[in-house]
Order: sequence, then C-alpha cells, then structure tokens
Amino acid sequence: MALVTFLSDFGDKDYYVPAVKAKMLAVNPQLNIIDISHSIDTFDIAHAAFVLRSTFREFPKGTVHLVAINTTGSITQGYIGIKLEEHIFLGPNNGILSLLADHDPGIMVQFADIHLQDTTFPAKDILAPIAAKVASGAAIHDFGGPLTNFRKLMARQAKATKEQILGHVARVDRYGNLITNIRKDIFDKLNPGKFTIEFGREIVYNLNKGYDQVEPGDCFAFFNSMNLLEIGINHGHGADLLGLKYDSVVFVNFNL
Amino acid sequence: MALVTFLSDFGDKDYYVPAVKAKMLAVNPQLNIIDISHSIDTFDIAHAAFVLRSTFREFPKGTVHLVAINTTGSITQGYIGIKLEEHIFLGPNNGILSLLADHDPGIMVQFADIHLQDTTFPAKDILAPIAAKVASGAAIHDFGGPLTNFRKLMARQAKATKEQILGHVARVDRYGNLITNIRKDIFDKLNPGKFTIEFGREIVYNLNKGYDQVEPGDCFAFFNSMNLLEIGINHGHGADLLGLKYDSVVFVNFNL
Amino acid sequence: MALVTFLSDFGDKDYYVPAVKAKMLAVNPQLNIIDISHSIDTFDIAHAAFVLRSTFREFPKGTVHLVAINTTGSITQGYIGIKLEEHIFLGPNNGILSLLADHDPGIMVQFADIHLQDTTFPAKDILAPIAAKVASGAAIHDFGGPLTNFRKLMARQAKATKEQILGHVARVDRYGNLITNIRKDIFDKLNPGKFTIEFGREIVYNLNKGYDQVEPGDCFAFFNSMNLLEIGINHGHGADLLGLKYDSVVFVNFNL
Repeated sequence: MALVTFLSDFGDKDYYVPAVKAKMLAVNPQLNIIDISHSIDTFDIAHAAFVLRSTFREFPKGTVHLVAINTTGSITQGYIGIKLEEHIFLGPNNGILSLLADHDPGIMVQFADIHLQDTTFPAKDILAPIAAKVASGAAIHDFGGPLTNFRKLMARQAKATKEQILGHVARVDRYGNLITNIRKDIFDKLNPGKFTIEFGREIVYNLNKGYDQVEPGDCFAFFNSMNLLEIGINHGHGADLLGLKYDSVVFVNFNL
Repeated sequence: MALVTFLSDFGDKDYYVPAVKAKMLAVNPQLNIIDISHSIDTFDIAHAAFVLRSTFREFPKGTVHLVAINTTGSITQGYIGIKLEEHIFLGPNNGILSLLADHDPGIMVQFADIHLQDTTFPAKDILAPIAAKVASGAAIHDFGGPLTNFRKLMARQAKATKEQILGHVARVDRYGNLITNIRKDIFDKLNPGKFTIEFGREIVYNLNKGYDQVEPGDCFAFFNSMNLLEIGINHGHGADLLGLKYDSVVFVNFNL
Repeated sequence: MALVTFLSDFGDKDYYVPAVKAKMLAVNPQLNIIDISHSIDTFDIAHAAFVLRSTFREFPKGTVHLVAINTTGSITQGYIGIKLEEHIFLGPNNGILSLLADHDPGIMVQFADIHLQDTTFPAKDILAPIAAKVASGAAIHDFGGPLTNFRKLMARQAKATKEQILGHVARVDRYGNLITNIRKDIFDKLNPGKFTIEFGREIVYNLNKGYDQVEPGDCFAFFNSMNLLEIGINHGHGADLLGLKYDSVVFVNFNL
C-alpha cells in the first residue's frame, strides 16, 4: 500500500484536510495517508520545515510527502516536485522544500501549466492529484519540466569558532524542551574535552544521556535523536521556567 | 480497501473516537477510516454539516460516511442511512443529514429495532457496526425499512433579488477567512457587470482570483473552490479585523 | 492488514507522532496505525490508562497497542511487552500497563538489552520497531525474557459497604460529563431497590437510560457503555455547573 504523508497548517476544524485526502483517495483508494501535522501555526514555514526535516528520513524510501503551507500566497512561483535522499516532496515553490536538507535536491520539477488550474485551493486541486499519482507509480517529471528557479530560504545556522558555538532555539516542544540548531558533529569536532553550555541565566558543565538523568526540576542538556543539542528542565516546562523561546540564543563555550 | 469517513464532536482526549474506530475494525480490519473532523464544537450541527457538505463529493463514489453529532440527544428519532449522490451516510435522524445537499436523498432507511440496542453510546454500538458492514459490501436497506419521517433542517439561504443578494457568513475558518452562503451561479445570473460587495464597514468593487491578489492587509473577495463567496484579509485574520463572525450579513449590490 | 494502535502525550505540533509512525511503517508499510490519542496531558498516566482501558477491548483480538507516556522518565525500569485478554501492549515499565485491567497480564516480557539502545526517544527507537514486528507476526517473547518486576500502580477504587458506595470522578469528558469509578456489577449487587446518588450539592433518586432522558439543564445519572456510573447535565457542562472535577467524590447511598 503506497504511503503519502501530509503536512499543512489547515487545523482540524475545517474541510481542508479531509478534502485533500479525499482528492488523493479518489485517484487511489489504496493510499495509506499519514498525517505529519496540521496544527502548524498558520503560515509558519520554519515550524513546518523543522517538523518534516526531523521526521521524513524515518519513512520508507520512496514515500511521497505532500506539503501544504502557504500554498496560495506563493501562486506566482508555482508548484514543484523534488526528489531528495530518495524521498519525493510536492509543494509550493516558496522555499519550504529548501529547508529540508543542507544540500540541494537531486531532481527538481516545475509542474507544467497543463496540470495547474485556476483555483483558490491548490493543495486539493493541484498537489493532491499529482501526489496520489506519484505514490501510485508515476514520476514527478511526468508532470512538468526542469525547475530552474528553486526558491531557497536560509535556516538560521549555528556559528562555530574554536572558542564558541553560538546557536539558537529552533523549536520549543510540547513539554517546553528547547531543541537548538547546534549539531553533535560540530560539537564533537570542536570540543577539547571541557565546555560550558549557557542559556538564559543557566550554565551546565556536562552532557546528560536523557531527560531523567538529572533530578526533576534540574536542567538537562544532551544531543537528541536528531543529533541536535536539546536543553530543558526534567519534568518542568523549560521554556517558561528559563525564560527562553523560539530563536533564543544558546552558547557552547570551549575557551575556559 | 473500503473507505469510511468519520465525523464527530468527540474531541481528541476521550475514548469515544478510538472506540468507534475499533468497533468498525472489529467487523473489518481492512477498513481505511478517514477522519473528517472530531473538533466540531459540541452539538454544533451547522458546523459539522458545513464541513461534510464541503468535502464529501471529493471522496470516491460509494464511500460510507459515519456522522456522529448529537447522536444521543436524538434517540427518539432513531438512526438512519441515506444514499445521496452515490455516497452513503449513516447518522442520527436529527436533521444533520438533510443539510448535505439542497435536494432529498435518493434512498432513506430507518434502521430496524433489531439493529438498535439500549445504549448510551449509539455511535459505537449502533452506527459503527452498520457502517463497517455497509463499507464491506452490505446495503443500508439490509438494516431496516423505508424512512418516512426524515427530519429536515433549513440551512440559512442567501436571499436574492435583481438589486441585491443578502447572504451570511457560514463559516469562519482557521485563518479568519469568511466563507459565505452566496453562490457563484446565483451571482453570475444576476450580475449586470457592475457590483459592490459590502461586509462590516468595507466595500469591495471587484472579485479577485485568490488570497494573494491583493496586498497583505487588504480585503479580498472571490468565489472559492466550493463556488461560495469568500472574503477576508490577505495574511490577516479577517473575522477579527473586520469585526465579523458566523452569521454576520454580507451584501452584494447590483443597483448602483 | 495488521493493526497497531498508538497512544501518547506527544501532542500534534511536534515531530514525535509522525516519527514513531514512520519507524513502524519502515518495518511494514502495510500497517494500519490507529491513533488512540496524542492529546493526553503531559505525563498523565491516569488519563492515558483510562482512555486505553475504555477502548482496547473493542479492537480485534491480537491488536498491538503501543503506549508512549512518560517513556523517558522510566528508562531505568526498562521497556516491556505484555499480553492481556489476547491483546498485546508495548510500553515503558512505569505502571501504566498495570492500570488496564484488574488482573495481571498472562504473559509479561522484559525487552532484552540487544533490542534496547541508548536513545532519548525510546518510543521511536525501541518500541516502534518491536511493535511493527509483533504486528507483522513476531511474538513479544522473541524480544526478551520473562519480566519479574512488573511495576504496578493502584487505580483509586470505589469503596463499597452495604450502606454506601463511595467513588470518585475518573474522567471529565469533553462535554463536561463525569465518569466515575463506580461499577454497575457492584451497584447491582448492593442495591436494595432504593438509593440516592449524591455529588456536589445534587441528589438524584433514580437512574436514567441516557443523556436525553431528562430535560436539558437537569442532572442525569446512568451506567454507561463501560458499565461505569456517569453523571452530568443534559446539554450542559456538568463539571463546571456542578463544581466537580477529576477525583471529586460521588456517593451512592442505600441506607435511606
């Protein structure tokens, strides 16, 4: 059974999510449609890209991912399909698909006019039928030609020197944990064996192995399953208690 | 794989949604159950009907739709199955199924006593088993006889004269956009070529092709993919900014 | 198509839910994954156990249930699989699986080190692959040996004497209805034919057959489809109007 994932900011009270699914199922009722999230803050490309970037590699190779964030605001840049690490993504050419990896996609297709239509609901009328057909065996290049103006957005990168990594909070999760953009491979390369991690008014001196390696109420810091530095408070809402939020700075200091 | 859609006001924190699905899967584990929404405001038949009416036709013909809104409040009127435009709907006879189209269903069945039971959870104990069996090949008339007292509710209709269409906001969506009950076919028939659209303290003089055809912060108006007049503010929460809500009046004036 | 249910407190805005599903689908893309809920209050084992206990028996026998509540806080107690009433449950050994029934599971397996790994996301990295394999035909004892330290939690039980049953509110549902831990079989055994039910400042003198057997605004009381005493206000938010909440006391008096 072919898999399609579906990510949007459509919420759960409107007809948008079921209408897109219905359109796909009308093409192929055998599709297994997996929701990534539909509770992305409206128009929040950074949030949506973070969630999909964190999860798409876990799906089987060949999975089709339908991305519907800000699809109507970008109508002039068109709709595209890309192939990235053997996954296929369909969405608007508004930059969101450029945030899924640090490298460019292998294949990029601009959907041809014949597959577009004058619609106020392109996720349903344009993307859904192509997604269902691609998941059922078609190729994205069946629906258009080479994309020449792939719109790129730059995710905020951590800055690293021998003395310091300066990163930011990329996501505050449901528990109030703070996931940063500081990567384990960069940390490992620079770490001389002694370091401090600074955020808000806190300093921690070593890495933990998990949330529960410190007492409830104490700060933890570890590299999570995405190999990103994650900090927070065991069984507490770290963001609230530490006064941190999306985009707050986090320092790793090596020059002690 | 047979499709069943499922619409309710059960929310996402209780056992009601998974219990209904479980009951269907116990009949046929191969069912593909698609959620329409479970976040309908409690007992809000108008909201539920709007969402289902806006989406059911996108599903493949023959899809079974299980509708569980206010199922227990209507126990005295019984439970019914209808066939409408080659879709099958099961639900309480409380009027909600009368709001899905402007015409009557082709087939209407009152479920027989033998399929009912004394229960405080009829969506699970009565509707789910029938839905699963119908999706697996049975016919709704296998479960009862002709329905003679189909309960009808009247959706608020737009009023049209040569001078004016007077409509209402039928739904404020997650983005704050206002979907009205003013239909494109009525507008097209009456439109002499010049018109104004009035809502709140705003007047617009022409139709757009989409949300992003006006500057962010400006009002748009267009006929959406359901051929209903939709108004709002590009990248703004139209309802809040315009002071409009569900049932607010919207005018289209032709007599200028 | 094999069924797996999935219960967590991960919410709907993070990558946790889709990442766990992806990991299962990578093992077996044919899995039919049914959400129990992901909106459980964070770390709320009692809420999660109540929802799963109320619904698991409706699923087909042999269904695999993946339970991810507080999985990281319990890392030292390990991860387990149990077989209970021909259903299979996988989760942390933190007591949650002991709350699903009043009797002990028939089979209890402690997952062996070889299937564990050093991870901050055990629901994805440990439980998901085992769940997918068990749903695809493997047995839980393929993944470990006998569990000797099954962690048990005690759900609050109603206390019954000939004169009185003293129970508590076990769940306030979305509608404000109050589901108690007072069981029908206990009530039936003790009931001399005359009783009062007391909660907040209300007393009711008989049982109803459903929500709508009293006037809107009046109190109802009945044994629900789980055979638990449920009380509330027809078409009103019982908890708010009666000043009751989770764990509030409810009395059934027989000594009149």
